[in-house]
Amino acid sequence: MTTKTSRRKFLKTALAGAGAAGVAAVPVRADDYITPAMTTPGRPFTPYGMPSKYEAGVTRLVRPPGLSPGTGASDSPLEHLEGIITPNGLHYERHHNGVPDIDPKTHKLLIHGLVKAPLEFSVDALLRYPRISAIHFLECGGNSGALGGPQPVQASVGSIHGLLSCAEWRGVKLGLLLDEAGVEPEGKWILAESGDAASLSRSIPLQEAHDEGILALYQNGERIRPEQGYPVRLLMPGWEGNLNIKWLHRIKVTPGPTMTKDETSKYTQSLKDGKARQFNFIQPVKSVIVRPSGGMTMNGPGYYEISGVAWSGHGKIAKVQISMDKGATWTDAEMPGPILPKCLTRFRLPWQWDGTEVVLQSRSTDDQGNVQPTREQWKAPYSPAQFYQCNAIQCWQLSADNSVKNVYA
Amino acid sequence: MTTKTSRRKFLKTALAGAGAAGVAAVPVRADDYITPAMTTPGRPFTPYGMPSKYEAGVTRLVRPPGLSPGTGASDSPLEHLEGIITPNGLHYERHHNGVPDIDPKTHKLLIHGLVKAPLEFSVDALLRYPRISAIHFLECGGNSGALGGPQPVQASVGSIHGLLSCAEWRGVKLGLLLDEAGVEPEGKWILAESGDAASLSRSIPLQEAHDEGILALYQNGERIRPEQGYPVRLLMPGWEGNLNIKWLHRIKVTPGPTMTKDETSKYTQSLKDGKARQFNFIQPVKSVIVRPSGGMTMNGPGYYEISGVAWSGHGKIAKVQISMDKGATWTDAEMPGPILPKCLTRFRLPWQWDGTEVVLQSRSTDDQGNVQPTREQWKAPYSPAQFYQCNAIQCWQLSADNSVKNVYA
Repeated sequence: MTTKTSRRKFLKTALAGAGAAGVAAVPVRADDYITPAMTTPGRPFTPYGMPSKYEAGVTRLVRPPGLSPGTGASDSPLEHLEGIITPNGLHYERHHNGVPDIDPKTHKLLIHGLVKAPLEFSVDALLRYPRISAIHFLECGGNSGALGGPQPVQASVGSIHGLLSCAEWRGVKLGLLLDEAGVEPEGKWILAESGDAASLSRSIPLQEAHDEGILALYQNGERIRPEQGYPVRLLMPGWEGNLNIKWLHRIKVTPGPTMTKDETSKYTQSLKDGKARQFNFIQPVKSVIVRPSGGMTMNGPGYYEISGVAWSGHGKIAKVQISMDKGATWTDAEMPGPILPKCLTRFRLPWQWDGTEVVLQSRSTDDQGNVQPTREQWKAPYSPAQFYQCNAIQCWQLSADNSVKNVYA
Repeated sequence: MTTKTSRRKFLKTALAGAGAAGVAAVPVRADDYITPAMTTPGRPFTPYGMPSKYEAGVTRLVRPPGLSPGTGASDSPLEHLEGIITPNGLHYERHHNGVPDIDPKTHKLLIHGLVKAPLEFSVDALLRYPRISAIHFLECGGNSGALGGPQPVQASVGSIHGLLSCAEWRGVKLGLLLDEAGVEPEGKWILAESGDAASLSRSIPLQEAHDEGILALYQNGERIRPEQGYPVRLLMPGWEGNLNIKWLHRIKVTPGPTMTKDETSKYTQSLKDGKARQFNFIQPVKSVIVRPSGGMTMNGPGYYEISGVAWSGHGKIAKVQISMDKGATWTDAEMPGPILPKCLTRFRLPWQWDGTEVVLQSRSTDDQGNVQPTREQWKAPYSPAQFYQCNAIQCWQLSADNSVKNVYA
């Protein structure tokens, strides 16, 4: 199907479908269109705005707490979000000891270890350095891990895949500060440590930290949110979420990886032979259909737009394909753009549903040639309980009763 | 100065300057770096997040109300914002009768007038159409009007230029719905009307409304905010703010402009000869230095980064130049990107200040060849009180006492 043909079909079916949705010619007297809002003074100005009260149901999906109330996660409600930017209030959270209360006036960032001169930076000092910006997704290494389970979980797309958000991050290039401290020749890795009571800490190769790391001070225009690391977090674009150390407190230059609790007891991938993959940094190529998705109710046969998001820690999304026959054939989806590296990318495909049972799947390919695997392909090398970096294709089954269910097709 | 030379100088001065800012080699024992936040449980998860309490001072700049509390404006605090996205809570407001309370379940959009079939759309019906996204600035036609006054106002950059924000807007192409209604051959303009008690309404040529208009339902990922037109606004990318009708309620296809109160009594530009320019839709090419800017205090001689934003309703920003000698010579600023059409674009220039009096100015050029004028050039055709679409170059004077003042240089 060429793009041109696709677009023509698209418009045609869009119109047909919209009619089916209840839009039709109506006899109108325009002057009758007076509403209560047109005869009432509105509310005055607010210093910091919030969503409409009619959108109060659109919140992060806070998962039931575990052993402590600050340990766990809340998902971005993907089923309610559109475009590529996640509003700051709905950015996903993953904490190991809740959100610390850090006063930016007293916070310090230390760069030490194998450097010529250990350096200490106040936030004000960081703010004097030149800043760079980029729009990047951030994804927890455990996102979508439910797809590894023995039975398909019946939950919303946000509940399954919502440890995923995207923002414009702005801050200081880490390389600039490492250069200023002067890395010794034996310095080959860094250890980045968070300033909360969980002290999450991860080892990162020096070269990548130097060339790709950003000390993020701003998130979508304003100062970074407490849940995302206020006053400063490490951003490693495209890397597993937990490596993007929040509340960044210390960076130590080391000869090798430090083997912290967070990279030995977890965030490793157990293989079938009893070994484990460690330091598997980059989030793999992935996509998910957001509409329709789990728990939604279809409106009977008719026109629909299949749409969703794709992303890859390796680069730009090159292609998203949709299958409606359990992977036998695939159709290219449109990607109206923007298409940015290591960033959420929207795709869509117009579609006429005949109301019979069907399984919808999306499969993304990035510009490095990586292709999203099926669940079976993804599971193949791992021990049964391993769930990190799951990028398996999501299958949504639509049934004649208008239900949409998570299935392993 | 070539880019390469500039970058080298930049890094060199950045390092020198950072030292001056209090960053220096410190004797450290890393284990001493234990803070209160590292020994205290953090707070648990929140359904909808807010900025840090330490950022409570970063709000919209609500202007003193006029005759009624809902009439007026609040500015985006540009001096606190970074990057190109304005977070939704800080998007500027301009209301003529406050923010109406509109229930999306009962809101209707009517397309009528010179059409084959008048159509009525619920919000749910609009949500069934295919959507498009784009990151665009929005600017009030009265923004920066203070520069037209006889004396330079001493205020922050947000207070003078903050009726300016930028967001990812997502919604339905207006042309799709106009095509569905079927415009009659005599239909050459539309009238777009808001559903609040001010009933702000503007006439727009049909062709541009059809090809460029978006019925925006989402703003930075979530449903559009009440202050920006919930549940749906018209977005005309690059056009004067008031044409982007909020709380969009009716679109009437007409043979010509309707000459409403909002396009006759205001939003026209009075000329010296007593005539007025009307229907001057597009916001002109513009830029402003955000740092340093009015009311800030310099830190004495040393390294600084001059930085700010540029934008044009006509297209992409091609160039931003900085002058430090009252316009005699100009140096190209860096634009690290992203550079998108009709979108805020960040620029920066490294600079060593010797501590003596100097006037900083920025001048932008867009990819259509439009160049930002001086205040004198901008004022030349107008009657003295005309203040709409002011894109005059902003001049900030730095003095030996470290003050930064608005001047007419």
